[in-house]
Amino acid sequence: MNVVEKYGGTSVATIDNIKKIAKHVADVKKRGDNIIVVASAMGKTTNKLIEMAKEIGNTKNSREMDSLLSTGEQRTITLLAMAIETYGVKAISLTGFQAGFVTSNHHAHAYIKDINDRKIKKYIKEGYVVVVAGFQGATENGEITTLGRGGSDTTAVALAAKLHYDCYIYTDVNGVYTCDPRIYPKAKKLKEVTYMEMMQMAILGSGVLETRSVELASKYNVKLYLGRSLNEDFSKGTYIMKQTKNLEDMPITGISIKDDYAILRVTNIKNDGIFLSKLFNLIAKLNINLDTISQQLNDDGTVNFTFYCNKAQSDEILDNAKELECEYPIKRMLGFVKLSLVGVGISTHSGIAAKVLNTLNMNNIRYYQITSSEISISLTIDEANKKVAVEKLCEVFDL
Amino acid sequence: MNVVEKYGGTSVATIDNIKKIAKHVADVKKRGDNIIVVASAMGKTTNKLIEMAKEIGNTKNSREMDSLLSTGEQRTITLLAMAIETYGVKAISLTGFQAGFVTSNHHAHAYIKDINDRKIKKYIKEGYVVVVAGFQGATENGEITTLGRGGSDTTAVALAAKLHYDCYIYTDVNGVYTCDPRIYPKAKKLKEVTYMEMMQMAILGSGVLETRSVELASKYNVKLYLGRSLNEDFSKGTYIMKQTKNLEDMPITGISIKDDYAILRVTNIKNDGIFLSKLFNLIAKLNINLDTISQQLNDDGTVNFTFYCNKAQSDEILDNAKELECEYPIKRMLGFVKLSLVGVGISTHSGIAAKVLNTLNMNNIRYYQITSSEISISLTIDEANKKVAVEKLCEVFDL
Repeated sequence: MNVVEKYGGTSVATIDNIKKIAKHVADVKKRGDNIIVVASAMGKTTNKLIEMAKEIGNTKNSREMDSLLSTGEQRTITLLAMAIETYGVKAISLTGFQAGFVTSNHHAHAYIKDINDRKIKKYIKEGYVVVVAGFQGATENGEITTLGRGGSDTTAVALAAKLHYDCYIYTDVNGVYTCDPRIYPKAKKLKEVTYMEMMQMAILGSGVLETRSVELASKYNVKLYLGRSLNEDFSKGTYIMKQTKNLEDMPITGISIKDDYAILRVTNIKNDGIFLSKLFNLIAKLNINLDTISQQLNDDGTVNFTFYCNKAQSDEILDNAKELECEYPIKRMLGFVKLSLVGVGISTHSGIAAKVLNTLNMNNIRYYQITSSEISISLTIDEANKKVAVEKLCEVFDL
Repeated sequence: MNVVEKYGGTSVATIDNIKKIAKHVADVKKRGDNIIVVASAMGKTTNKLIEMAKEIGNTKNSREMDSLLSTGEQRTITLLAMAIETYGVKAISLTGFQAGFVTSNHHAHAYIKDINDRKIKKYIKEGYVVVVAGFQGATENGEITTLGRGGSDTTAVALAAKLHYDCYIYTDVNGVYTCDPRIYPKAKKLKEVTYMEMMQMAILGSGVLETRSVELASKYNVKLYLGRSLNEDFSKGTYIMKQTKNLEDMPITGISIKDDYAILRVTNIKNDGIFLSKLFNLIAKLNINLDTISQQLNDDGTVNFTFYCNKAQSDEILDNAKELECEYPIKRMLGFVKLSLVGVGISTHSGIAAKVLNTLNMNNIRYYQITSSEISISLTIDEANKKVAVEKLCEVFDL
């Protein structure tokens, strides 16, 4: 078997953890498998480095920040490679650059253009465990870049895609649940989930995997596994794949929750498109993806415009609102959450939306907005109703 | 003026120090000078990383160790570049690899084959302060290497040599003294010293600069300055140059002291060269440079062989002595120091050796070995006599 194993920051937080992972990796190698390990920076290293840059008083130079942050993973991989060697297995560390990750020059959120896998293949052939730094790459010009949020997952999936390996993501959760167990303790762990569902859940806030890595896995049909670090029993985590066996059984696979939701409203705008065009330019400049936008026409010909984002994004928009140079005030309401029900069964099971709304009505839960796609239904509700809404919906859909 | 400024670990130990250095560098740049800064890892970072590798239980993989240690300087240079920017001056960090330091593949003690200075020159031309990671480079194959002890000084001098810049080494001492002020508080600071003298002092244990960087400065005639970090008054440190103005005045420029000296003796060896050849092979294998070796012929045709090294090296030799497969035991005596008087005047002033030995005799100080070169005289004495010997010699030679 050929595997890429990815270990996140919590998994490699201490020297002891690194030793344990090294032992596991050496065992896998001794079994005869080819194995590539992708590792993140130890524990809170990245945050500490950001703190140092803040003390310096300059975090805006994303080229320097990338070079600074990349040292975190570089330390982990060298220590991990040396630890693996102590178990009698050859190991070699490769930084993003050394591993051949050629990226765009978008510092702090570069995308992978290609992987020159010559070096990795050579070392694998020579019997090495190859330990690759997650989250990083370099431009053709040798400038160090980082891949942004969830970057180490992306590194792992990209390698698996390029080399046709399976990809095991080890993290501090032991799989994908129908719902966050901290909110609904009776949530069930899913044995399997489709790429589509996982992507929707990622987009809609499940927080387990970033959309980008799932998207990449889906595109190249990489068999993904998500489980807790060093949990030897692989059947205990969640496999993410093209089609699950129980495709037709459950209309809803899980519920994702996005907290700290804000509703922004601008009312009675002249319907000439000028304001909206300014607003969208600003939002693009701030690099914010609005996830829901709606517009209603009033009787007098003006329009009301409503959009939804998280609180931090709404802060940014309001901080920069003066750039819009317009007379319409942006009103903000806080204290909402967005619930999203995800499942490939939504398109084939009728009456799902009705069942959702009935459940909310029966429990006197007000909703502010509802959107749906072929595999998801999302609603914004008051934060105070979150717990009840999640419980009732989980019960109704047997999650 | 074009300068390379090098800041050692103590100078960049804290964020506050980095900010202060950044301010100074920005001021130099604003004056219109071209400036390249070479920085070491912050404070005890390198030691901490070595400790981590020890905890892992594997420090022997010098390739991985090099990659691990190189992260130390990389962090300093990014923070320093960002700090310089806060003072309104453009700055850019370059790792050893990015700066074009092409080295041999001798991990842990690589030598610089060449500097591809295209990038540095480009950034200097564009008005940047270029901040280069000391101590590191990369092979043609992109493997990260380090330059060994005093490597950051070597980085700085090599850059100065390549670009014809002056080189300012900032450290935690404020110049070169005639003798270690901790041992002889009345020691004088030298305003100027020649490359030759500085090299001898470095070889003989002055500890201020590594031989290698002085050698490089001498070879390329780089004007070197040594002083305390952020001491704005440049006249206060020591300039190291080809010829000093007061070349003929002082026969002795300074005294270097090597502590923890061991004498190893093997007696009554059959004079067929077999044992010595084995011994030298072992010493070469252990990468030890013996600094003094002597052999005496006995009346019975056998020889006595005496050599000198520091205690740690003698430990290594004794630990590996069984490899010699011979019947002669190696006897070790500990508790010595080696004093070396250095000065280009030694070759031109007669009677220096006599004056040295008279001073020792008059003070009842026994010496075990004496060697001399054109610019130095070295003697091994009992550790107990160190203080008195240093004081008396400093007085006699007005140091």
